Amino acid sequence: MPLGQGLDAVFRPRSIAVIGASQDATKIGGRPVQFLLKYGYAGRVFPVNRSAETVQGLTAYASVDALPEVPDLAVVAVPTGGVVAAVRDCAARGVGAAVILTAGFVDAGESGAAAQAELTAIARDSGMRILGPNCLGAVSVATGVTATFSVNIETAMPEPGAIGIVSQSGNLGSYTMRRLSDAGVGISTFLATGNECDLDVADGIAWMAADPATRVILCCLETCRDAGKLIAAMDLARDAGKPLVVLKIGTSETGVMAAASHTGALAGSDAVFDAVLRRAGAIRVHSMEALVDLAQAAAIVGPDRLPRGNRVAILAASGGFGVMLADAATAAGLAIPRLSEATQARILTAVPFASPLNPVDTTAQVSSRPELLVEMLSAVLEDGGCETTILFSSAGFHLERLSAIYIEALTEIRRRWPDKLLVLCCGGPPETLRKLNALGYVTIEGIDAMCRTVAGLARMGRPAPGCPVPQVEKAARPLPPSAFANENASKQALAEAGIGVLAERVARSRAAALAAAEEIGFPVVLKILSPDIGHKSEVGGVAVGIEDPSGLAAAYDMMMERVRAAAPSARLDGVLVAQMAPRGVELIVGTKTDPIFGPVVLVGLGGIFAEIAEDVAVQVAPVGDGEAESMLRALKAFPLLDGARGRPKADVAAAAAAVAAISRFAVRHADTVAEIDVNPLLVLPAGEGAVALDALIVPSARLKSEIAA
Amino acid sequence: MPLGQGLDAVFRPRSIAVIGASQDATKIGGRPVQFLLKYGYAGRVFPVNRSAETVQGLTAYASVDALPEVPDLAVVAVPTGGVVAAVRDCAARGVGAAVILTAGFVDAGESGAAAQAELTAIARDSGMRILGPNCLGAVSVATGVTATFSVNIETAMPEPGAIGIVSQSGNLGSYTMRRLSDAGVGISTFLATGNECDLDVADGIAWMAADPATRVILCCLETCRDAGKLIAAMDLARDAGKPLVVLKIGTSETGVMAAASHTGALAGSDAVFDAVLRRAGAIRVHSMEALVDLAQAAAIVGPDRLPRGNRVAILAASGGFGVMLADAATAAGLAIPRLSEATQARILTAVPFASPLNPVDTTAQVSSRPELLVEMLSAVLEDGGCETTILFSSAGFHLERLSAIYIEALTEIRRRWPDKLLVLCCGGPPETLRKLNALGYVTIEGIDAMCRTVAGLARMGRPAPGCPVPQVEKAARPLPPSAFANENASKQALAEAGIGVLAERVARSRAAALAAAEEIGFPVVLKILSPDIGHKSEVGGVAVGIEDPSGLAAAYDMMMERVRAAAPSARLDGVLVAQMAPRGVELIVGTKTDPIFGPVVLVGLGGIFAEIAEDVAVQVAPVGDGEAESMLRALKAFPLLDGARGRPKADVAAAAAAVAAISRFAVRHADTVAEIDVNPLLVLPAGEGAVALDALIVPSARLKSEIAA
Repeated sequence: MPLGQGLDAVFRPRSIAVIGASQDATKIGGRPVQFLLKYGYAGRVFPVNRSAETVQGLTAYASVDALPEVPDLAVVAVPTGGVVAAVRDCAARGVGAAVILTAGFVDAGESGAAAQAELTAIARDSGMRILGPNCLGAVSVATGVTATFSVNIETAMPEPGAIGIVSQSGNLGSYTMRRLSDAGVGISTFLATGNECDLDVADGIAWMAADPATRVILCCLETCRDAGKLIAAMDLARDAGKPLVVLKIGTSETGVMAAASHTGALAGSDAVFDAVLRRAGAIRVHSMEALVDLAQAAAIVGPDRLPRGNRVAILAASGGFGVMLADAATAAGLAIPRLSEATQARILTAVPFASPLNPVDTTAQVSSRPELLVEMLSAVLEDGGCETTILFSSAGFHLERLSAIYIEALTEIRRRWPDKLLVLCCGGPPETLRKLNALGYVTIEGIDAMCRTVAGLARMGRPAPGCPVPQVEKAARPLPPSAFANENASKQALAEAGIGVLAERVARSRAAALAAAEEIGFPVVLKILSPDIGHKSEVGGVAVGIEDPSGLAAAYDMMMERVRAAAPSARLDGVLVAQMAPRGVELIVGTKTDPIFGPVVLVGLGGIFAEIAEDVAVQVAPVGDGEAESMLRALKAFPLLDGARGRPKADVAAAAAAVAAISRFAVRHADTVAEIDVNPLLVLPAGEGAVALDALIVPSARLKSEIAA
Repeated sequence: MPLGQGLDAVFRPRSIAVIGASQDATKIGGRPVQFLLKYGYAGRVFPVNRSAETVQGLTAYASVDALPEVPDLAVVAVPTGGVVAAVRDCAARGVGAAVILTAGFVDAGESGAAAQAELTAIARDSGMRILGPNCLGAVSVATGVTATFSVNIETAMPEPGAIGIVSQSGNLGSYTMRRLSDAGVGISTFLATGNECDLDVADGIAWMAADPATRVILCCLETCRDAGKLIAAMDLARDAGKPLVVLKIGTSETGVMAAASHTGALAGSDAVFDAVLRRAGAIRVHSMEALVDLAQAAAIVGPDRLPRGNRVAILAASGGFGVMLADAATAAGLAIPRLSEATQARILTAVPFASPLNPVDTTAQVSSRPELLVEMLSAVLEDGGCETTILFSSAGFHLERLSAIYIEALTEIRRRWPDKLLVLCCGGPPETLRKLNALGYVTIEGIDAMCRTVAGLARMGRPAPGCPVPQVEKAARPLPPSAFANENASKQALAEAGIGVLAERVARSRAAALAAAEEIGFPVVLKILSPDIGHKSEVGGVAVGIEDPSGLAAAYDMMMERVRAAAPSARLDGVLVAQMAPRGVELIVGTKTDPIFGPVVLVGLGGIFAEIAEDVAVQVAPVGDGEAESMLRALKAFPLLDGARGRPKADVAAAAAAVAAISRFAVRHADTVAEIDVNPLLVLPAGEGAVALDALIVPSARLKSEIAA
């Protein structure tokens, strides 16, 4: 089914039934009726109430069957026990979509899960789409559709505008809507998906991606119940050129567990979520304030003035505030280039005591002479070296005398440079700020908040291109059981998948080991082979740098003796005779299975570095070679691969190809493989490749029990 | 001179002269007079004006000499060219202190520096204290002393209160004052020190530490012109039990450079500043918002209710907001322990569908039944497992109906638990928030901001103890020149200072090397000794693991041959024969000279780790053994010293003692040593010590030129 299908019935219904409609407008079944009447919904509204003749002045009906026509949309607000029957009635009557406001399903634990499964089945079997249950519903501002009981629209409907909001949590979504309304930002549509028995956030994103009224999509995420749908929906938003701003909560361990317990969904890794959002080109924010600031700024700036880069010029009438802005801009990832000599000269001509570097210290002279402010701003805007100019004013808009001067200058600037982006880091009385906003100026008082918002606008203005994800087919046959137990077989399986390995042979006697070494060529390494020994070196099971046959014989005998002494009950499958590894940079490459997104691939520097420095790149598998290389380049340790400190440059392309191949391997065998651990992947000097020196493949729990059985 | 001496004349003058007083209250010389009259300063005010008979209704005097009495305080607002003469007149007449508002001194570059030096000399010679020049001056709210032209008090004087503000930047300081006033927070005193020709921020901190009206000191820092004074003043504040909250700006490279250019002072390292503040127990904040939030919260909470720990309980009527609070609390370093079984049971008795873990999901039931909110809050406050309880409400105070319910519950809670700390993460109409503040509730709308503020309160409630700094005397004799050129001599100098080294001998022939090796005992290491060779191993100048005399002879001959081939013009001083190092953990320990704070000591893990992971601890030298150990424990890599992954525990005590000894060495030789680089310091297993394997001592620029001469 196409993503978002059925949401037309939610957002553009010709008629709406409210099942469980109440006369009392403070009740969950009373509010939708009240809102529909109050906000001028133009279609027909049918209250369904078993006993009342009228509800809030409208003719009421005893049941869905009794309705004079089939409504496009049913809002269900009956008590939990009556929901399934009411929804079944709707489906039988041919209703387009049902919004279930009632709670008590998976949100109530086991007891509600069965009833929710029934709802899912009704949707699947009938084709009627269901939003919820346990959701805050939907609002379409332009049409006055209010399939919701949100207290946040009790007083007033938001102004119509270009921001669409989709949220699992009704509270988060409606709080976002209220904060934006308070800030004077217009809304197109609001969708809260609750327990997501059928329609989910992905459907909402997809519908808004196609909705002409929506230009920017805000999304509050707590979890994801269908990874494929979410990824596809984000791609639709990107392809439609609509910035998608995501507030994904649950970043800390406590937060992730709380979110899982609260949504009744699986606890996925926040790092994986982050990678998925990044790959999709979504703009992730980390607080409600950041979400609201960015949405408001985007609404004021509009699509045509978005900055196409991250360079900022900073002007402040105080050196100290200029320093703070420079600090905050740097922390937000913005660049603060020097202004051109010509621009600097022009600034100094206007105000000889100004500091014309970036940040520009305008001095307090601009407070009394607006023409100086106009001239300095013009110089910086004309400079062209920065996509965004930030003007700071601590007191400028608080005092009427100064405010008039600033507004005069800014009106002139807007006239002269209608297309350039100048933002104002300032506070002031609400009516002054509204005036500035109406002139096209973003106003944010906090310095950090302003810089973070400009960075967000720059990401909107220069959207990340889509990242090609390779197509990988599931393997026709599972891996042989030996691949899970034996280093050599694991590496063979990886080698067949295109991952480089060194020459190695299994030998079950000293003579066989000698023959293998002659075939491979000295120097060689000897490793014990046993399904029962995890840490080979701890039992004397590794010997490196064996130079000749006599050395090999001695090493073989000593190893057998030491291993038998240290691990007398271990089954020994012989030894592995392997080519001695050349020098290179050691990486750890692994895959794990995320409960939400399935196989993910991880890469970090080998040894203790990745763990202690928390320097690991992660992405949902599979990744292409290009994305794998981006992962390597994102590591703090990347300079070690790139020739830092006079080292030879490593074969980054080969390392990336190996990471990509391992990620494909994990997807191909996702049904049977839980985890892969290539430790180390040795990356040789440029042009010489990369080889897996050791590998471990962990079977899935299902396969493990099959093997055991 | 005791820190802060002379500020009594600034904050508690019996009479004030305003030199350059103007009739025009918008002028820099008119505003102080206007403010003094408007805000009811009780002492005498003497305008000094060359031509006017009266100024703003007061009798004016033509000169300082013409004044009818000697004023305690002179406010100087004459043009730049007249400042030195006016200040000289004040000093001659015996004025207690002068506040110079006029700019154009070091802030104007070279041209103003000479005049500023004259001001410094006047202060030194006369004993009259000078604030400024180029400063925004001083305000004492209680006494109506307004030696300032700040536009931020144009409309109203702040309420009297317990917060003292001291700032180099007048803009930052007065902006802080206005934001606090807007938030209804009372101020004791305000001091802006500008160019600091005499009095500086340290004097301000010290004075406020002793001022009975000031309970919390806020400090905005751009630079530091006298490290010793600043450190001593911070110690006074700590010893007085007054929290010192510091907004130190200039964290980014651009910011640090902008601050240096703007203040005319040296650009110190932000990391060193950070270490100095931490050692002094100051609470560093990173934004104006954080400063204002924490000051307001401290004013509302008062000293007796400050949390004595960092554990928080979180309650929200929405799971999603609970998750966000858990995320933000974790990021702010707060702990979120589980509530006791008894508390959980009590919560579930009140609201069966609540989630009683921490964060507590109260469900929306609390919105209609205040007694349930009271019961749940009581359960959590009585639990005793958390020092602070955070209650979130997204809409509770925005709607009159809900607001009344919440306020009823919170009034009851305050009555029942007057001493417990409950804070409210909520927005609302200003009058509602003021009512809540008056009840003793901190109200902050932002989730991140709330958690950051609670963490700051917890630091105030559990101040860090003072950190003993060892006394180190300057060395009577400089190091011998060889200590700067020769690895062996460098290590000898360090060994004499108590830093462990391995046995090693200089040998100038093969025979001497053989004799040295026999004396030390095999195995040994051989290293070339040459003042001209930096990277010994790159020219074949290092041989390790030499097991016997024949091996030594061969290694010696090969080294001489290879070094002569690779570096034919290098002067060779022979070889170093050294004991072969055992296995251990390699650290890098170094010292550098910070332009502001002098010698600083740094420590990190050896190899590339410290650099790539940015994992280095820094502190101003000298450090004691205890502080050195804290530095080691602050490293991400500390687990490697502490037995991570089955390694032996390293001799942390010996490593700390070596770091401390190196730091003392740097202070003792601060006049001649610019930098020390011990790389590596090898830390042996516990009980076996730590040894400097290689060391480099870099002479100061002055010594370098002396050596060259």
